[in-house]
Amino acid sequence: MARPRKSEHLRLQLLDTGCQLLNEQGYHGTGIKPLLQAVGIAKGSFYNFFPSKEAFVASAIYRYGEQMANEFEAALTGYEQAPAIVQIWMSFHNKVCNRATKGEPFTCLMGAMSAEIAQANRLCSQAIDAVMQQWLDRLEVMVINAQQQGDLREDLASRVIAIQIYNAWQGCLLYYQVSNDIDALLAQLKNLIFVLATSQGQATLNDVDV
Amino acid sequence: MARPRKSEHLRLQLLDTGCQLLNEQGYHGTGIKPLLQAVGIAKGSFYNFFPSKEAFVASAIYRYGEQMANEFEAALTGYEQAPAIVQIWMSFHNKVCNRATKGEPFTCLMGAMSAEIAQANRLCSQAIDAVMQQWLDRLEVMVINAQQQGDLREDLASRVIAIQIYNAWQGCLLYYQVSNDIDALLAQLKNLIFVLATSQGQATLNDVDV
Repeated sequence: MARPRKSEHLRLQLLDTGCQLLNEQGYHGTGIKPLLQAVGIAKGSFYNFFPSKEAFVASAIYRYGEQMANEFEAALTGYEQAPAIVQIWMSFHNKVCNRATKGEPFTCLMGAMSAEIAQANRLCSQAIDAVMQQWLDRLEVMVINAQQQGDLREDLASRVIAIQIYNAWQGCLLYYQVSNDIDALLAQLKNLIFVLATSQGQATLNDVDV
Repeated sequence: MARPRKSEHLRLQLLDTGCQLLNEQGYHGTGIKPLLQAVGIAKGSFYNFFPSKEAFVASAIYRYGEQMANEFEAALTGYEQAPAIVQIWMSFHNKVCNRATKGEPFTCLMGAMSAEIAQANRLCSQAIDAVMQQWLDRLEVMVINAQQQGDLREDLASRVIAIQIYNAWQGCLLYYQVSNDIDALLAQLKNLIFVLATSQGQATLNDVDV
């Protein structure tokens, strides 16, 4: 396989470091200077890649979307044949556990950037929306399957349920930032899927040992 | 009635302006200097009131908690005798509509500060937790009443339901920052109470004309 060009490698390094800094310090707390120092490049090189901080953060949000898609795949490994309601639960449960194993923080760049800059910054808001809709698309596929399998309620449209799960996940993550309680985070997530489940779906969920 | 002392008036003015700036620009984006300019006082006066930026923001979060309690009261005006499930819905619906009327933003300082600084800043995290628990206390009273009135499901504890509503509200607000769609925000909120309701509670909610 051909190695990616050096400049592409550098661009991704900027974006990955940027995602980390943005997660830790927010949009306003993340300066270009510390980013350049962390990656070890000159200011001119940065502006070869990105015309502005705004454009950089929008690109970082898209990059974060790719990472989330990978995390989503990883979380479902071994559960390809499981009932869709179990897949929904595992897509969150295993993501949390995988991050805990790696010592990564339980934050979401999507939520953090939504809160801090979405209203004021159109380029970033568009990036958040695009990544959010991709995530909702993946969730909705599982929701439709779970409804067809009789495990999720059918009095709400599949997209409505997907949005409800996505929103609740963001809210649970905010609560976690204050509580620092992983068990509470997982319990809150499981409850939220539980209330969207039929009695058959609730039994399916209760059969899962986590 | 005695007028509040001038210094107390100034302290509240600093906190109210601080809440506004923090909501608009986040913790890292809110400098002490623009705050002092906005209120028109010298740096020394600020440090007479607050030993640090951290202490100031923690106080602003408590102040925001008082404002939220007032908003909560205002949202329930005229609904004192309504079923508790309707009160829960109205406590969010009317808050959103009251803010829209006043042209105030649909943001929540609690959620924004949870995302940006709760992990790194213990003093602010304690303030968020205290205000959040007070809000949950108010919500839980209505949840218990709605359960007793047969309108909310009883297979989850009242506190669990209150936390679920609080988290979902925070998540809905984040989604709104991107969508800018008030109708979608209200529909998402109503759905969330709908899935926690019994069939009797759903009928009660459907009878409400908003």
